[in-house]
Amino acid sequence: MVDGRSRPIYMDHAATTPVRPEVVEEMLPCFLERFGNPSSIYALAREAQVTMERARGRVAAAIGASTDEIFFTSGGTEADNWAIKGVAAANRKKGDHIVTSAIEHHAVLHPCQALEKQGYRVTYLPVDEFGRVEPASVEEAITEKTVLVSVMAANNEIGTIQPVRAIAGVTHDHGILFHTDAVQAIGAIPIDVDALGIDLLSLSAHKFGGPKGTGALYIRRGTRVKPLMDGGAQERGRRAGTENVPGIVGMGKAIDLAVAEMPQKSAWLAAMRDRLIRGILDSIPDTRLNGHPTERLANNVNMAFRYVEGESILLSLDALGIAGSTGSACTSASLEPSHVLTACGLPPEHAHGSLRLTLGSRNTDEDVDYVLSALPRVIERLREMSPLSPNDNA
Amino acid sequence: MVDGRSRPIYMDHAATTPVRPEVVEEMLPCFLERFGNPSSIYALAREAQVTMERARGRVAAAIGASTDEIFFTSGGTEADNWAIKGVAAANRKKGDHIVTSAIEHHAVLHPCQALEKQGYRVTYLPVDEFGRVEPASVEEAITEKTVLVSVMAANNEIGTIQPVRAIAGVTHDHGILFHTDAVQAIGAIPIDVDALGIDLLSLSAHKFGGPKGTGALYIRRGTRVKPLMDGGAQERGRRAGTENVPGIVGMGKAIDLAVAEMPQKSAWLAAMRDRLIRGILDSIPDTRLNGHPTERLANNVNMAFRYVEGESILLSLDALGIAGSTGSACTSASLEPSHVLTACGLPPEHAHGSLRLTLGSRNTDEDVDYVLSALPRVIERLREMSPLSPNDNA
Repeated sequence: MVDGRSRPIYMDHAATTPVRPEVVEEMLPCFLERFGNPSSIYALAREAQVTMERARGRVAAAIGASTDEIFFTSGGTEADNWAIKGVAAANRKKGDHIVTSAIEHHAVLHPCQALEKQGYRVTYLPVDEFGRVEPASVEEAITEKTVLVSVMAANNEIGTIQPVRAIAGVTHDHGILFHTDAVQAIGAIPIDVDALGIDLLSLSAHKFGGPKGTGALYIRRGTRVKPLMDGGAQERGRRAGTENVPGIVGMGKAIDLAVAEMPQKSAWLAAMRDRLIRGILDSIPDTRLNGHPTERLANNVNMAFRYVEGESILLSLDALGIAGSTGSACTSASLEPSHVLTACGLPPEHAHGSLRLTLGSRNTDEDVDYVLSALPRVIERLREMSPLSPNDNA
Repeated sequence: MVDGRSRPIYMDHAATTPVRPEVVEEMLPCFLERFGNPSSIYALAREAQVTMERARGRVAAAIGASTDEIFFTSGGTEADNWAIKGVAAANRKKGDHIVTSAIEHHAVLHPCQALEKQGYRVTYLPVDEFGRVEPASVEEAITEKTVLVSVMAANNEIGTIQPVRAIAGVTHDHGILFHTDAVQAIGAIPIDVDALGIDLLSLSAHKFGGPKGTGALYIRRGTRVKPLMDGGAQERGRRAGTENVPGIVGMGKAIDLAVAEMPQKSAWLAAMRDRLIRGILDSIPDTRLNGHPTERLANNVNMAFRYVEGESILLSLDALGIAGSTGSACTSASLEPSHVLTACGLPPEHAHGSLRLTLGSRNTDEDVDYVLSALPRVIERLREMSPLSPNDNA
């Protein structure tokens, strides 16, 4: 594509991942031959149901849950909306207060804001400069009216891993439900709902090599949650709508592969990540790492470059065949500085010049070399052109 | 499979349809190569966005809408939930009353019931013996507090087609929004949102040769509807969550094919349908046709057999390689008689012995012959065994 490269370098795996060929292979028969509606009662439908339940078992096994605690959704956003609105609605008589963090994905923040318009109260916990939530701050925020604490397992922009076990512990000490958005964490760090004390967990297939349009909400047995989708009796009456059987089957295969490969893949991704971070810091002045230096996802690089605009970096990299992000794909149309970086205390002039590179299975050491050779020239050129630059760069 | 047949006879196309091979072919590159997140800003993402917008155009064209009036969802159930809850929430200050029919799909009825628990009032209009809603009854039900009338375009169990244009006319005379669940109608009868006066319309890809897990809500420009999914800025800020690009692309191709083939296919399906109905009525005593004799979907056969249980018919047919339904797949786990047949005034002893056969592209005249030869023996044998039978059959 560029420099004789045969393909662009994709470093935006936090936004979405290619579906793995083995996953597509398992999905295909569900489109064409084993296409039955799992709710029907004949051979073709039973086949679909058996395949779907096998996938449910795989998802459950990946997070240490039971199969009857897994409910399929259309993705992470639906799972987050369901968890937050569903717990709030089911516990309205008990209380009207929710605790979450300032750096959640918008799929958590915006449902919370929607609830605020209905009279609920929400505490948005601050984070430290690395994006970590302090468990003690959860303790302080909890009131007698708190019905849910929701803190993500790992952040989508800066990759910071939260102390989920400690936060869940504090939450449970007060008899309150704990939800975690694990969309970025599944397949990246070990997640065991019992060991960590998670009552509800959201996941999304397209973040770990599965298809878009499929996710799940883990709901611990006995947890009261009102449905978000009312209608047919699917998912044991808790989530209506014909199940996306091919998507579910694909998610099952993808999560199986992702969890099995995690230990080896994490080490390899972390080595590439660290080489990228070190190389960028060494070659580009006025640059800092966003997020936690060690408690971060193995595939996440997020750098702030002073005196440049993130979007200009992206466009320059795109022209060189490199796909990255300024933060969340879900807000890329927005010109606001990232709410995550702002919550970490990053001044706007740094937050505006941030670049997220998130690695994945197809990336190679050569990709890292190429980015390390291209990026310094891109930043230098942008700084030369930038009205934001200090005089000595102008 | 049976009688030397190489494949089972699938006559449950109202429950779901196989995905057409041409559709799968268009979807495949979106899994593997053109896998970008449409919200990102680089070449791979723009490709995904362009493909998705092409599909949006196809869906819009199929129902006479503009592309900016099509919002992708995870299926018909989400579209129905969004339309009903979203219009109710957006118009709460104006009123708290919804008018719908007693024979809607549960994806409409259950959201209405959920709203009733929140203090809304809902009128469930009666239907005549053929399952038709009388437009005059809509007029009578409307009050000053009515914010939405929702009546399905065609019924999923009995195939009855509603006088949508007349109902929408009455609704608009009172300045009220009209929603229609067109999940069974798309690709089966002509739908033009302007000609029919539809403000919101739900559709589902897997009912017309597209994949499960994908649907759309048509929202007429300027219509106030609150989001069901809060989060990212996808779908112009109205439906959060990474778009299911492969599913959307598949839906676009499927709706294109379905609408283009509709005139020819309808005539051919109607001929098979009428031969099935006539053959069953001629060969099996104590049998009646459920639904309207002429205003019905071209692929829908729904028969009530006295003295037998619908589920026993299904199991017997399944053993002979024939896949049918008692009514809605979404309620097949329920032992209640169909709410649709009950609303049509069918006595329970008839409603319990109902069989729905819904035809599709792969069905042949030989399939019809086979069903017509198998079904009389099945019903006769069940009646011989049945405690419900009158003495002369015992």
